[in-house]
Amino acid sequence: MNLQVIVHLIALLMLFLSVGMGISTVVSGVGPDPAWVWKDLAFCALATFLLGSLLFCIARCRHRKVEFGTGVREGFATVAMSWLVGTILGAVPFCWIARMTIPDALFEAASGLTTTGASVLSTELILRDGTVLAAGIEGLPQGLLFWRSLLNWFGGVGIVFFVLLILPLLHVGKGSLLYNAEVPGLKTDSDQLTPRLFQSVLWVLGFYAMLTVAAAIGYRLCGMNLFDAACHAMSTISTGGFSTRNASFAAFPDAALQWTAIVFMLLSACNFTLFLRSILQRRFCFWEDEEFRFFLGMVVIATVAVAALLYEGHPEGLNGVPRTVGSCLRLAAFQVASLASTTGFTTADFDAWGVPVISAILLLIMFPCGCGGSTAGGMKCSRILVLGKAMLAEVRQCLFPHTLTDIRLNGARLAPTLVRKTFVFALLYLTLIALVAFVLLCLTGASLGTCGSAALTCLSNVGPGIDAVGPSCAFDWMGASAKILLAVTMITGRLELYTMLVLFLPAFWRR
Amino acid sequence: MNLQVIVHLIALLMLFLSVGMGISTVVSGVGPDPAWVWKDLAFCALATFLLGSLLFCIARCRHRKVEFGTGVREGFATVAMSWLVGTILGAVPFCWIARMTIPDALFEAASGLTTTGASVLSTELILRDGTVLAAGIEGLPQGLLFWRSLLNWFGGVGIVFFVLLILPLLHVGKGSLLYNAEVPGLKTDSDQLTPRLFQSVLWVLGFYAMLTVAAAIGYRLCGMNLFDAACHAMSTISTGGFSTRNASFAAFPDAALQWTAIVFMLLSACNFTLFLRSILQRRFCFWEDEEFRFFLGMVVIATVAVAALLYEGHPEGLNGVPRTVGSCLRLAAFQVASLASTTGFTTADFDAWGVPVISAILLLIMFPCGCGGSTAGGMKCSRILVLGKAMLAEVRQCLFPHTLTDIRLNGARLAPTLVRKTFVFALLYLTLIALVAFVLLCLTGASLGTCGSAALTCLSNVGPGIDAVGPSCAFDWMGASAKILLAVTMITGRLELYTMLVLFLPAFWRR
Repeated sequence: MNLQVIVHLIALLMLFLSVGMGISTVVSGVGPDPAWVWKDLAFCALATFLLGSLLFCIARCRHRKVEFGTGVREGFATVAMSWLVGTILGAVPFCWIARMTIPDALFEAASGLTTTGASVLSTELILRDGTVLAAGIEGLPQGLLFWRSLLNWFGGVGIVFFVLLILPLLHVGKGSLLYNAEVPGLKTDSDQLTPRLFQSVLWVLGFYAMLTVAAAIGYRLCGMNLFDAACHAMSTISTGGFSTRNASFAAFPDAALQWTAIVFMLLSACNFTLFLRSILQRRFCFWEDEEFRFFLGMVVIATVAVAALLYEGHPEGLNGVPRTVGSCLRLAAFQVASLASTTGFTTADFDAWGVPVISAILLLIMFPCGCGGSTAGGMKCSRILVLGKAMLAEVRQCLFPHTLTDIRLNGARLAPTLVRKTFVFALLYLTLIALVAFVLLCLTGASLGTCGSAALTCLSNVGPGIDAVGPSCAFDWMGASAKILLAVTMITGRLELYTMLVLFLPAFWRR
Repeated sequence: MNLQVIVHLIALLMLFLSVGMGISTVVSGVGPDPAWVWKDLAFCALATFLLGSLLFCIARCRHRKVEFGTGVREGFATVAMSWLVGTILGAVPFCWIARMTIPDALFEAASGLTTTGASVLSTELILRDGTVLAAGIEGLPQGLLFWRSLLNWFGGVGIVFFVLLILPLLHVGKGSLLYNAEVPGLKTDSDQLTPRLFQSVLWVLGFYAMLTVAAAIGYRLCGMNLFDAACHAMSTISTGGFSTRNASFAAFPDAALQWTAIVFMLLSACNFTLFLRSILQRRFCFWEDEEFRFFLGMVVIATVAVAALLYEGHPEGLNGVPRTVGSCLRLAAFQVASLASTTGFTTADFDAWGVPVISAILLLIMFPCGCGGSTAGGMKCSRILVLGKAMLAEVRQCLFPHTLTDIRLNGARLAPTLVRKTFVFALLYLTLIALVAFVLLCLTGASLGTCGSAALTCLSNVGPGIDAVGPSCAFDWMGASAKILLAVTMITGRLELYTMLVLFLPAFWRR
């Protein structure tokens, strides 16, 4: 294996993370944090920077020129290592400043970087200076809260890089091509690192940043303070879901604010290339996309169903909010948008509503989740569409054994290999959920609902589940091994399964 | 559509069922039942016979000669109609003699004919003569109990016919070929109704009957009375699971008897062609079969795991039985064999053991269940093997993109179409479970565990689930629509999905 490339790229990642820590230091310094916090953060940033520079020099010194694209194996190793190293470095400030245990900090960092948003912060914390925080998130220093949201945002950047730049190179289940829709001047399924590909990625990243700024402005205008607005904007657009409050978005009961969040969550779950194509071609081309129509249909139907069930099931209103069509619709739309986009913010504990059908609907949308080419996790709507069409075609073929039916998406015929790979992906996905849930059950002895939904929510990078990992519960009650398992599950889901799964093949480590 | 063929075959089925009712009449007459019971049964038999004869004559009169094999559509319609008509006629004695409601009787008959073994009999029943039965099964007239077990046995016969004779003709997902292993002089994947094919089916049916007699003798020797032995033998070998007692096999605590049941349940879940090949070739050829090895491995591992967990979790013993290695092994082996073979007998309420991991293990083996070519339901071990191998091959292909890997079963390379069809089958299976569970949730408002396991246990034709449909609970608390839904689910599972699914295609009904 060509270790040089891997070290080189990991070094770049470390430099990148150190810049993030630096920004958090500035936020901490400007904000009301005690001085030791920003000093500690600065120390973390500096250490990471020095380590990164050292590795960079080592990788450079050996050979003059770094050779990229030497092999598939290096690609997988780099990507997996990046997320693992990112998780470890991301965890350092949590360990250091908030005195979290190592598994807790790793879980939190993995949850951040994979844009999951599940948290272990709900019990008492003791900071490094001895301050006791009664309950989880709210009392944390602003520098650390910002770092949490920044991890979400970096995770989003990372996944844009991964999906647009690296997946096509790795030939990982060409299924990934499904969501690299061609954009004029934005072709991504090229076979090598062309300047054009880089340009595409820059476009997407630029758009990602722009959307974040827009969300922050939106939140600020609706009444959030600047700090909360910035943090929530970063975790909204990355579909991460880390909040600065224990109660998540329930701490911001303003209707306009919640609707703003709903809109931005949904926007972040749409294929980014559709936005870019609309901008470049100066016409709204969302309707032409089958996946978008499917996604929107799913969100609308789920919202209406949940709202109707809420209206029907709670004549006395919910949590002090009187029962109106508007409040039910908002509650429903928020939960649906949050879970479908895999953000994971909540304005209410849907699992405590006492309507099992609602929990079932919300669990079901945690399988498809958002569209491909977005920062959303899950199986992606395009895959569900392909699977549905292929299953229907197979049943039809029983009746007409001699006709061959094409599977089409957006009018284009899909290669049989692609369809097969999509099926394998889906079954691997479900198998992994069952496997992780089973191991979790053995480790924790919790209920089937808890373990199943924890596995699902982590593999789909959503955040909340049901039962003991419901919206108002954190993952802190689990043992260290269960937390590590779920952290690995999140990374596996974020990297479209294969990147992590190949690491378990003995053949990967041979020679 | 050629209605004549359908009517002809349905008429034959009715004549066949009337013979079964006749046998039940004899059993009722010989046994301790009041006279009105056997008279009622005789009336049912006669009515069915006359109706069948009438239909037979109508089908014959129109044309002199019945033309078989005219089309795929007729095939599907005949098979689906057979099971539906069988269910309706099978329900008549329940309605008539035990005064069960129509949905209850249909559920019970469907559960019998599909060899599921789930029952609605647990609440008070009032017979036609006014006798009040305090609790379900035990007090039923022997004629009716025999009819229940006979429905199981007929279901087994029906599935042998269906899998060996009709599926290959219908080209339903050639995946079915997977378990039509070639036997010298017993080829079943022929394209037309050859005498040879008929001969094969007769061989298998003969073996099926022989095994039933062997089980009955075994049970009788271990201390059951003749009636119980006959009924339990029929529902063991058909992997049905209807018992003559409310407590199922827990009513027979004798260890030797339970081990006998375990052996016969496992035998019924093996591919029947392996037995025949062993007999015809005069050598034990089970070890050569990959599917059998997988099935045996699964059963052994699950048994050992469950037994160990039981031993660990219940130091004080279970239900008055002291904790010994033997008793734990027997409890575990019985439950595992019963669920893996989709029989559904129970010697204990595994869901009440308080060890969630055991429930999870037992739920997991309800997906693969037995081997192909047996009377067991579920996805079949061969499919799971193919899926596992194909998924592994796909992950390997990420590393070695330019090597093509063959999927092999028993050394033979599987056609890519077959592999694809297996994937579609598996995903359809899981989708149907999710769909049925969701509708059930909407209809009943029960827990996710109840609805999910009810859907699984019915589609896999097992019998018990967890929570409110656990081993010591019946399905009687559900509403009429939920019962009908589950009855259809059982038939869908029994007919390998496609036969029922094509009925939902508008194209099926066109022209």
